[in-house]
Amino acid sequence: MDENQELEEQFAFLLKDLQENNIQEFRERFLEMHIYEQGQFYQSLTDEERLVVYTYLSPKELADMFDVIEEDNENMKDYLAEMRPSYAAEMLSEMYTDNAVDLLNTLDKKQIAKYLSLMDAEDASEIKDLLHYEDDTAGSIMTTEYVSIVANQTVRSAMYVLKHEADVAETIYYIYVVNQENQLLGVISLRDLIVNEDDTMISDLMSERVISVHVGDDQEDVAQTFRDYDFLALPVTDYDDHLLGIVTVDDIIDVIDDEAASDYSGLAGVNIEEVSENPLKAASRRLPWLITLLFLGMSTATLISHYESLVSEASILAVFISLITGTAGNAGTQSLAVAVRRLALADEKDNNFARLIFSEVLTGLVTGLVTGITIFIIVGFWQGNFILGFVIGMAMLCAITVANLAGSLIPMLMDKLGFDPAVASGPFITTLSDLTSVLIYFSIASMFMSYFLA
Amino acid sequence: MDENQELEEQFAFLLKDLQENNIQEFRERFLEMHIYEQGQFYQSLTDEERLVVYTYLSPKELADMFDVIEEDNENMKDYLAEMRPSYAAEMLSEMYTDNAVDLLNTLDKKQIAKYLSLMDAEDASEIKDLLHYEDDTAGSIMTTEYVSIVANQTVRSAMYVLKHEADVAETIYYIYVVNQENQLLGVISLRDLIVNEDDTMISDLMSERVISVHVGDDQEDVAQTFRDYDFLALPVTDYDDHLLGIVTVDDIIDVIDDEAASDYSGLAGVNIEEVSENPLKAASRRLPWLITLLFLGMSTATLISHYESLVSEASILAVFISLITGTAGNAGTQSLAVAVRRLALADEKDNNFARLIFSEVLTGLVTGLVTGITIFIIVGFWQGNFILGFVIGMAMLCAITVANLAGSLIPMLMDKLGFDPAVASGPFITTLSDLTSVLIYFSIASMFMSYFLA
Repeated sequence: MDENQELEEQFAFLLKDLQENNIQEFRERFLEMHIYEQGQFYQSLTDEERLVVYTYLSPKELADMFDVIEEDNENMKDYLAEMRPSYAAEMLSEMYTDNAVDLLNTLDKKQIAKYLSLMDAEDASEIKDLLHYEDDTAGSIMTTEYVSIVANQTVRSAMYVLKHEADVAETIYYIYVVNQENQLLGVISLRDLIVNEDDTMISDLMSERVISVHVGDDQEDVAQTFRDYDFLALPVTDYDDHLLGIVTVDDIIDVIDDEAASDYSGLAGVNIEEVSENPLKAASRRLPWLITLLFLGMSTATLISHYESLVSEASILAVFISLITGTAGNAGTQSLAVAVRRLALADEKDNNFARLIFSEVLTGLVTGLVTGITIFIIVGFWQGNFILGFVIGMAMLCAITVANLAGSLIPMLMDKLGFDPAVASGPFITTLSDLTSVLIYFSIASMFMSYFLA
Repeated sequence: MDENQELEEQFAFLLKDLQENNIQEFRERFLEMHIYEQGQFYQSLTDEERLVVYTYLSPKELADMFDVIEEDNENMKDYLAEMRPSYAAEMLSEMYTDNAVDLLNTLDKKQIAKYLSLMDAEDASEIKDLLHYEDDTAGSIMTTEYVSIVANQTVRSAMYVLKHEADVAETIYYIYVVNQENQLLGVISLRDLIVNEDDTMISDLMSERVISVHVGDDQEDVAQTFRDYDFLALPVTDYDDHLLGIVTVDDIIDVIDDEAASDYSGLAGVNIEEVSENPLKAASRRLPWLITLLFLGMSTATLISHYESLVSEASILAVFISLITGTAGNAGTQSLAVAVRRLALADEKDNNFARLIFSEVLTGLVTGLVTGITIFIIVGFWQGNFILGFVIGMAMLCAITVANLAGSLIPMLMDKLGFDPAVASGPFITTLSDLTSVLIYFSIASMFMSYFLA
């Protein structure tokens, strides 16, 4: 709490410096703060105040701060637009390449070209290279600011290289060893450099079994490698082992957050990454799913209307519609969540399609049996009619089993077909399960109609 | 792919070494592998083979490998139990303290005491200290293997300290500056040490605005600080600024994974962290929720049974029960997911309870209006009865609005009461919304009964 107060006090001082044109005081106070806090302050300013900031800070100083502002911040575009183009271009080239690319990717092609034309050729070409990688691949999240050395040198000379590249490299804690063709031969950690004698040869120290990822690898697989090995950075190579860049752990945290949000969104049938407080906007994002599912729900209604004569004969049947569809829907949602999780965790080879489905159907049978017997007893006593209880219990058993089948089969099919299994949303499964549950329920009911009405 | 083959080949060689008692070859090959791969190999062995491993490797060598095996691995207990107690105790004291504590926490008190009594006093007391911290706090995930120095020395002497502590410290990339009472005064990164001259004083280099967390802070808040500042480690202090330990980014990735899994589990109404392929076990974990919700669903059935006479008069009403409950349930799930997300993201001060609820109800009104009008038109034409269409549309509008209210109000109330809002599960909201939807539907229907039957 008092840390927050201290920070707010700093912000107040900074604002005063800005308004009173105390450029020197402002710079000292501002540059002393952590870059994340610099970003917080910068984002709290008005348009006019930010224009002053661009005259107080160098493009390099602004770049350090821009490196930590979330790239999905909606205002980033506007910030860029309000700077002088040459200032913005210089700032972009001072940012870590991966962050600059993320930022440029939010602009249209014409603007990107404008900024690239204002940079020096080398920076522009590095950025251009990264702009081409597909979304969600290792290439799209890597940066080119790594430290590489050749093997044929001592710890002392490697430390010398490090000292001089430390300022621009995104991490100096791993040093990659390459040959003349820039092919990755080994890796050595700064920790190894520190604990070993200055005269030791790098070739004797380096680990030759480098864990690396390919530039086209899915970012989720890259995240899994980070989890397994507890690395702080991983080298990215092409398919002939040429070192292209590195992925750092802070980018991986973003990947993990994004994937979790997308799984969660799938289950909920709403994109939670765009949490807006504007009810109209929020509604417009939720309606497409709701209306689509409304039409799917209409087929359930149509199905029930076929059984309307059954209901008018035995209105008691209407009493249990929502109980059966609801319970089956709950079971289907559980099944869906487990299937999506299992697909995310399992290695390729472990994905024995048939076995997983079989196990899920069996789970459905067991839960269905327990739930069915429970409701059989309740309805039997409540309505004093054990045949009706049997119909409801039987329908429950079948509906739950089918819901479990649908909840596991659909995400697995999507996975097989190359889609993200998480887009098989929870609401979709429950609405689909409404349809099958109603069909099962009325089929069984019509078979036993004459008995329980007696 | 060929990386995997290479690894499998290594595993085959290792197994052969083990079976043929080639201890020297085994040790060379084994220790050359990355510790994660060592763990993979170790876990693939039979009980007998593992017993041989314990004679080939020192407790320290085994400890390095145990540091990366997931602490939630069910077999860890058995591994410990099969080692000689003194070997196990030595291994535990060689592990990073946080990992040793995680492992010990899976054992019962008597066993913990046994291992602690076999360790040397200092190691035992460090572990004992950490065992006391509450789950899910910074204290429970921190480790005590950090590097600290006093300010009054040069870069050269700090590097000397670092060299000698590098072997035991979990990270050497941040060095914490403390006073005689071990109170945190500043921090300096290894990067700063490397780029500065050997004679520079630490006091001139260190950053005095240290970002730290308190030992009792929630681990989610710690994770958020990592996200904001892109740190690799954070110091943990007591409330008088004494440095107690550090949290490293690899532990934070576990925290982020756990929290995502628990949010997802909440929405699905099933614990996805225990994905089992045994259908009986899986069923036993899903049934408690299903049966609980079955009883809640029974109240919906009871409610409908009060309207049974209405249904027997107008069996067409039964046709739309599942459409209305299903659509309202879908809307409620969306609302729940957004509310849980918003609560996770928002700062304390931003959580204006009334405003968030109001905005969610408004979103419900808008989505309800659009959905209601759609279904009014569909039912009107389909059944040739626009009064019936009006009843269904009106019920839809009200049911969706109420579902949105419930979906946002319930997690927010839970948050206010100090519970994790994510435990308000999706299935609970849909089942609750079934009840309110049916009540709304039949109330409106009974009001307009005489009109649409005409």
